Amino acid sequence: MISEKMVGFVKGSSVIRAMFEEGKKMAAIYGADKVYDFSLGNPNVPAPQEVNEAIKSVLDEEESTFVHGYMSNSGYEDVREAVANSLNKRFGTAFNQENIIMTVGAAGGLNVIFKTLLNPGDEVITFAPYFGEYRSYVGNYDGELVVVSPNTETFQPNLDEFETKITAKTKAVIVNSPNNPSGVVYSEATIIKMAEILNKKQAEFGTDIYLISDEPYRELVYGDVEVPYITKYYDNTIVGYSYSKSLSLPGERIGYLVIPSEVADFENVLGAANVATRILGYVNAPSLMQRAVAKCLDVEVNVEPYNRNRELLYNSLVEYGFECIKPEGAFYLFMKSPVADEKEFVAACKEHQILIVPGSTFACPGFVRIAYCVSYDTIKNSLPGFKAVAEKYGL
Amino acid sequence: MISEKMVGFVKGSSVIRAMFEEGKKMAAIYGADKVYDFSLGNPNVPAPQEVNEAIKSVLDEEESTFVHGYMSNSGYEDVREAVANSLNKRFGTAFNQENIIMTVGAAGGLNVIFKTLLNPGDEVITFAPYFGEYRSYVGNYDGELVVVSPNTETFQPNLDEFETKITAKTKAVIVNSPNNPSGVVYSEATIIKMAEILNKKQAEFGTDIYLISDEPYRELVYGDVEVPYITKYYDNTIVGYSYSKSLSLPGERIGYLVIPSEVADFENVLGAANVATRILGYVNAPSLMQRAVAKCLDVEVNVEPYNRNRELLYNSLVEYGFECIKPEGAFYLFMKSPVADEKEFVAACKEHQILIVPGSTFACPGFVRIAYCVSYDTIKNSLPGFKAVAEKYGL
Repeated sequence: MISEKMVGFVKGSSVIRAMFEEGKKMAAIYGADKVYDFSLGNPNVPAPQEVNEAIKSVLDEEESTFVHGYMSNSGYEDVREAVANSLNKRFGTAFNQENIIMTVGAAGGLNVIFKTLLNPGDEVITFAPYFGEYRSYVGNYDGELVVVSPNTETFQPNLDEFETKITAKTKAVIVNSPNNPSGVVYSEATIIKMAEILNKKQAEFGTDIYLISDEPYRELVYGDVEVPYITKYYDNTIVGYSYSKSLSLPGERIGYLVIPSEVADFENVLGAANVATRILGYVNAPSLMQRAVAKCLDVEVNVEPYNRNRELLYNSLVEYGFECIKPEGAFYLFMKSPVADEKEFVAACKEHQILIVPGSTFACPGFVRIAYCVSYDTIKNSLPGFKAVAEKYGL
Repeated sequence: MISEKMVGFVKGSSVIRAMFEEGKKMAAIYGADKVYDFSLGNPNVPAPQEVNEAIKSVLDEEESTFVHGYMSNSGYEDVREAVANSLNKRFGTAFNQENIIMTVGAAGGLNVIFKTLLNPGDEVITFAPYFGEYRSYVGNYDGELVVVSPNTETFQPNLDEFETKITAKTKAVIVNSPNNPSGVVYSEATIIKMAEILNKKQAEFGTDIYLISDEPYRELVYGDVEVPYITKYYDNTIVGYSYSKSLSLPGERIGYLVIPSEVADFENVLGAANVATRILGYVNAPSLMQRAVAKCLDVEVNVEPYNRNRELLYNSLVEYGFECIKPEGAFYLFMKSPVADEKEFVAACKEHQILIVPGSTFACPGFVRIAYCVSYDTIKNSLPGFKAVAEKYGL
């Protein structure tokens, strides 16, 4: 018998992952080039060649027992120092290695920080639409996820409602910009306003509220959009980063947490996050990959393939009569379903071998997510299907 | 403020890890060759050259988006099939890829399986001396660790006491052979008797009791000692394996779980373990390392350096008058402290720059653990220190 809690987790399990598994099965039946799988944020752009070169040079130049061995649970000191310096150079921050914990991707980092902070019943606020896994990450530690309803016009966070949902039990807020699934980037004005609200509420309740910034898509922005570095706007900010999307390494499970010295109860948070890394069974972020990414901190992220996909997909869908906002970042397009029940629309797309994810997975029914981190040909070849579905719904 | 539960975890935090950190500091002060750090099970034997060759060939021959990309949360199908086939060939089992979940080391695997199985208050039995992290892994899911007291003569499990400690709330039993910290291997007779007791108690209480075999040291045995493959003796066995010690890859976090088709509630356990892998934030075992170890399944593990260490250390310590049993496996020697309070003895050793771990860390006070996965010279050069301490205690 599995645990009762797991029964719940399995029931609410990832629609996205189920689709990914189904996509693989459909590809076996119809041929991979006849299935248009927009379900998963699995980058189709190969890792920059510097990554494999870095891996090989680490293997050739460093001792095996060092490269593949244990290090401090928080990661190699020199890697953490390199990450801190890179952030300082880019964002004018003043981190040192002590502020960095290397993690098993962003998902690992978020679990570490929620385990560190949450007592049962503590509330964590997030903004719909949000990455569905947050519910599990918070639930793992018996926290309560409190959801601010979406602004389906702009997909910017609804700050008025946010303010009303902060209570004495609010321990953390989680934001994700560039956003999965909307592709929206939170503006500096939004971050400033959010920080004001949080500072006011901290004073009102005499509590510490940690703002957790989940940033796997930080590097993936189009045009001259700026993504503010949130630690500069609000002291109690903790950043979770991942190289999964920027360096196309999602399978490698490599990222980091930034815990600035300014956060409330810094020493205890840092110490507990280190212990949480160990006892949650990560022990440490994968060692070879730590050393490899440290050599790739200045690699230019090539967003052009995603941008090309974005333009073709967005322009085509709008031409067919669909309604959507143009994503500014990440590699997702969040589109309004032509029928109220977006699951019906998802099913109609599947008849054309198009796999997309219902918005209810992101607490935003009536919309669908299209992950365009696929080949240009996949998008091109999927268009007749999208067009046929648009016609079916009389767009 | 960190969570109350983490306050407890931090307080009970790893003495071993604290020593590892201290050893690094001492090495900076006295010079690395003047500090004899026997604290951590961090292999000093380099990974077999086949490992780095496998990593490079995977990088050269396989697509970047495949090697570094997402796969099923349980791991690549071909890797799992190769692991299953290798086990079948070695142990006469009949696993297929469905029975294998690739994990972030054994620590990741144990967390996955405890999250899958444990309701709050469920009991998990283990045998002292035991790896102290089990307490955290079980505590993560609010289970209760029930400890069978050690047999300090043979360090074989105390099966009479075991039988009395099984209750209706016993959900799992965790065994670790070759054992950390004793170096003892559980004999086939022991496993058969343990299976009999478990079957009897399952019938008596009408419950399922999972026997979890934590096997990071399976390959590390000396002479012709056999380590029984426990799934063949008891249906409800789940195996946690790691390549950390056998291939000297502890930093890479790569291992697997075996969930045989015979275990109670197989389909649900399998499905929940897959979901637990994802929501605990592992998402999947590191991808490149999955593909690399699959190419190294037939690599001969070279235990000769550890054996040479074992002989020198054991013979010298016995000559100085210390009492210990000769380890049959792993790379730990568990020695009786010459004074009842072994922490005093540990402190006396530290005056000679010798770092060893008190047995109370393993629920076995009065003993110390010496991890001999160090260079032969470290052992040789530490001997005058051990001899001086022996003389201090009048041995």
